[in-house]
Amino acid sequence: MAYTIEQIAASLGARAFGETTLEISGVAEPADAGPQDLALAMKPEYAAGLAQGAARAAVVWDGADWQALGLEAAIVAPRPRYVMSGLTALLDPGQGWDAGIHPSAVIHATADLAPDVSVGPLAVIGRGARIGAGSTIGPQCFVGADARIGAGAFLREGVRIGARVQIGDRFIAQPGSVVGGDGFSYVTPETSNVEQARATLGDMGDTSAQSWTRIHSLGSVSIGDDVELGANCTVDRGTIRDTRIGHGTKIDNLVMIGHNVIIGNDCLLCGLVGIAGSTRIGNNVVLAGKTGVSDNIFIGDNVITGGGTIVLSNIPSGRMMLGYPAMKMETTVEVFKGFRRLKRLFEDVSELKKTVTQSNHKT
Amino acid sequence: MAYTIEQIAASLGARAFGETTLEISGVAEPADAGPQDLALAMKPEYAAGLAQGAARAAVVWDGADWQALGLEAAIVAPRPRYVMSGLTALLDPGQGWDAGIHPSAVIHATADLAPDVSVGPLAVIGRGARIGAGSTIGPQCFVGADARIGAGAFLREGVRIGARVQIGDRFIAQPGSVVGGDGFSYVTPETSNVEQARATLGDMGDTSAQSWTRIHSLGSVSIGDDVELGANCTVDRGTIRDTRIGHGTKIDNLVMIGHNVIIGNDCLLCGLVGIAGSTRIGNNVVLAGKTGVSDNIFIGDNVITGGGTIVLSNIPSGRMMLGYPAMKMETTVEVFKGFRRLKRLFEDVSELKKTVTQSNHKT
Amino acid sequence: MAYTIEQIAASLGARAFGETTLEISGVAEPADAGPQDLALAMKPEYAAGLAQGAARAAVVWDGADWQALGLEAAIVAPRPRYVMSGLTALLDPGQGWDAGIHPSAVIHATADLAPDVSVGPLAVIGRGARIGAGSTIGPQCFVGADARIGAGAFLREGVRIGARVQIGDRFIAQPGSVVGGDGFSYVTPETSNVEQARATLGDMGDTSAQSWTRIHSLGSVSIGDDVELGANCTVDRGTIRDTRIGHGTKIDNLVMIGHNVIIGNDCLLCGLVGIAGSTRIGNNVVLAGKTGVSDNIFIGDNVITGGGTIVLSNIPSGRMMLGYPAMKMETTVEVFKGFRRLKRLFEDVSELKKTVTQSNHKT
Repeated sequence: MAYTIEQIAASLGARAFGETTLEISGVAEPADAGPQDLALAMKPEYAAGLAQGAARAAVVWDGADWQALGLEAAIVAPRPRYVMSGLTALLDPGQGWDAGIHPSAVIHATADLAPDVSVGPLAVIGRGARIGAGSTIGPQCFVGADARIGAGAFLREGVRIGARVQIGDRFIAQPGSVVGGDGFSYVTPETSNVEQARATLGDMGDTSAQSWTRIHSLGSVSIGDDVELGANCTVDRGTIRDTRIGHGTKIDNLVMIGHNVIIGNDCLLCGLVGIAGSTRIGNNVVLAGKTGVSDNIFIGDNVITGGGTIVLSNIPSGRMMLGYPAMKMETTVEVFKGFRRLKRLFEDVSELKKTVTQSNHKT
Repeated sequence: MAYTIEQIAASLGARAFGETTLEISGVAEPADAGPQDLALAMKPEYAAGLAQGAARAAVVWDGADWQALGLEAAIVAPRPRYVMSGLTALLDPGQGWDAGIHPSAVIHATADLAPDVSVGPLAVIGRGARIGAGSTIGPQCFVGADARIGAGAFLREGVRIGARVQIGDRFIAQPGSVVGGDGFSYVTPETSNVEQARATLGDMGDTSAQSWTRIHSLGSVSIGDDVELGANCTVDRGTIRDTRIGHGTKIDNLVMIGHNVIIGNDCLLCGLVGIAGSTRIGNNVVLAGKTGVSDNIFIGDNVITGGGTIVLSNIPSGRMMLGYPAMKMETTVEVFKGFRRLKRLFEDVSELKKTVTQSNHKT
Repeated sequence: MAYTIEQIAASLGARAFGETTLEISGVAEPADAGPQDLALAMKPEYAAGLAQGAARAAVVWDGADWQALGLEAAIVAPRPRYVMSGLTALLDPGQGWDAGIHPSAVIHATADLAPDVSVGPLAVIGRGARIGAGSTIGPQCFVGADARIGAGAFLREGVRIGARVQIGDRFIAQPGSVVGGDGFSYVTPETSNVEQARATLGDMGDTSAQSWTRIHSLGSVSIGDDVELGANCTVDRGTIRDTRIGHGTKIDNLVMIGHNVIIGNDCLLCGLVGIAGSTRIGNNVVLAGKTGVSDNIFIGDNVITGGGTIVLSNIPSGRMMLGYPAMKMETTVEVFKGFRRLKRLFEDVSELKKTVTQSNHKT
């Protein structure tokens, strides 16, 4: 697909300059750009790259002298990062799958698919599943019994949706993700070592061998509109009620959401985040990569964590957190600085003790 | 399915009171319960919820005045958490899959399945695989050559069992889990940087480029009875002998078990736990979410770790551990307290140094 | 398959002694070895094991008196660990899959497979995909549109390769791994809380609710020769250009490689490692299990991290790093020692403060 600079600018709500009838067929970093590419030079430091590449047109920073940069056409946008969204949506070549229902897909007679739904090769759609208009169920996907997926879904290859999962509109899931596995919940006939340890913080008393009995998951998973799920994630079913994910929340790869968890709207959960059972997370929360959150706690709205943060207790709304254990970011930054001077601190105190002892003797 | 209060109480070994012929068809949290639901009100704090909901019957705490709570019937159990196990097993609606062998499954002529085994659509059963009575192999599962799965297994969609893996009875695996991937084991023709670093802790000498040669995994994986495996886990094959998981061990989602690892009986491994190659773990060990364990070490019986613990060396039996590096829980709790006062400590020492220098000068 | 001691020694470039026509059919640990097994007794501490087992032949340490150990034949190798590579390659029984193209595989008419490629049951090969000579695409694998896989690949069951991914020769991937999921990249119309937090480190100003708009991934993934990928890994596509992995790099299970990441040659990435978007990693880098690396940073050649390291900023070449935050290994080792004495340090300083105050008063 090719678009003119004018068309692209219009679709982005941005201003176009110069030869706006120039056609481009892709985007590229400035130094890699060929004559058919729109170069992305949204900051002055990309100017040198433009000279190395062969772009005739570019998206440039506000105030750039695009003619001096050797360009024939330019697009200027007020918020360049936001322009990336429209540009990449326009030029996305997609996965190249055939539309329609592949004859090798196994679709239960009672499943209810909107007329324009596509189902890829070797996908399985279970008893009573419902799939909304315009959705694509990718190759080798699985949609379980009585699951409901809204309109405009796009499931990449090998996504698994368990029985009775409810998903809103415009759901996107990357390959291998699992929604609706059983919760991890076990109990012992007698009070377990873990319960005792939690109660006493350390004294385990009689640690006799104990076997675990399963608590089955009777709930399922409810997911709002405009949610995205990364590759190889897992979202567990609730025990009695559903595990819930709000509207607009985006989840990266290899993220684990435990049973009974409630996640609000418009959150970002980055790669390898884990959220243990029954924890509640507010709206607009951002958890950086490898953040872990304990079970049965509460994280308020607008909380942000830094990479690797381990959250062991509740966090009030609006806090920025970092570290193990999670503390306010400025506290952890101080602690991290302290680490580098810790050896010296021990030496100073040791020295002080000697000095003070001596001066006391002198006195 | 509907059960009377009397039937439910009998199946749980609990006492029933009031209108024990009342039929219920599901369970619910007290505030969400409809008139057909058994409300779960096992602690006094749920009393208010009962008033909000419409439950006519509930499981209540020992000593509750169930009539005053507006209930027509009640079940009282000595250990409410344990009751959850029986209740949820009784009321589990399952995955809604058809029984029998789906015609789209690809089953090798030499595979040996007990007569009542179910195999879902598009599953693959390899050469010489054996599957015991009453087992269900879910949709799109894979069972490799000469693998053996015992009686009563339940494999959710897309589980992969590699060649020669041996699994006991009543195995449960959640979607996307992998048993029997190759171990991560490589060697360089000369002593590698890593070996040298381990030997000298830091001095890497000549760090010339080195390529890695694969050590193949000749062993497989042996798993005991009553083991459960979460979604998207990975359990690697052993190098010479099998990687081993004991009876009754339960493993949560996205857990990684490295090659040659030996795990005992009745352990709980929570989400995103990783256990590196050749490490041995005792019986009744509980590793909380995101715990990591180094290779080639030993963890004794009844050890419990807290969330995010990184274990870098052996742990004797019975210890409760927390932190990075893993230390006794009470030590780490002190360290975590210290973090919050660390900035002040540096200031105090700085102040002391000034004071002591001055008083020495005065003297 | 059986080999003589002589054949094995020759294939390993090692020396053989004694009854070198003895045939062996497997390898085993010394105590487990039967008369058909080659025992692996590469260190003197395995001598006792040999006496317990029934091995007639063994690989022994340099200088071992193999006859005194009761063996009829022995192989001596200069670097025993390296011998493991050749031995296990020779004796690997493989996965037991049938060669050829299984009739249940769904292969697009436009896909281009070398004549000797094997494709397992229920695999899907997409439009325009190309697969090189001698490659095996395992059961239930997916290869997307216009993807290219070189010669000699071995894809275990359920591997997913997205559209336009380019992979070199001799690629090995374990079950369930995903190459070519979409990058995790979103933007808000206004400056987001996260951007603001990064800029101000803590002051979030007006934290009004914001929704996330997707930045599509137009790039794909490029992987060099001799790369291996563990089970259930995820490698994301780049935004504009490809995410890249160099030659000879080996990646363990459940590893996440974010969008736009560039990884050099001959790296080892152990289990549960996560590398956030746009980070660059040099050659011969070894990241131990559970290492996390922030986005948009740089790690130099020959860097080694210890288990659980969280890398928040650039690392120069040749460094050994450990801890959260990542610091030089010797610094972190000192910090870890300090943790154990931290409570005592607080007490010492408290005591000093009292003493100094008193002596000041006395003076």
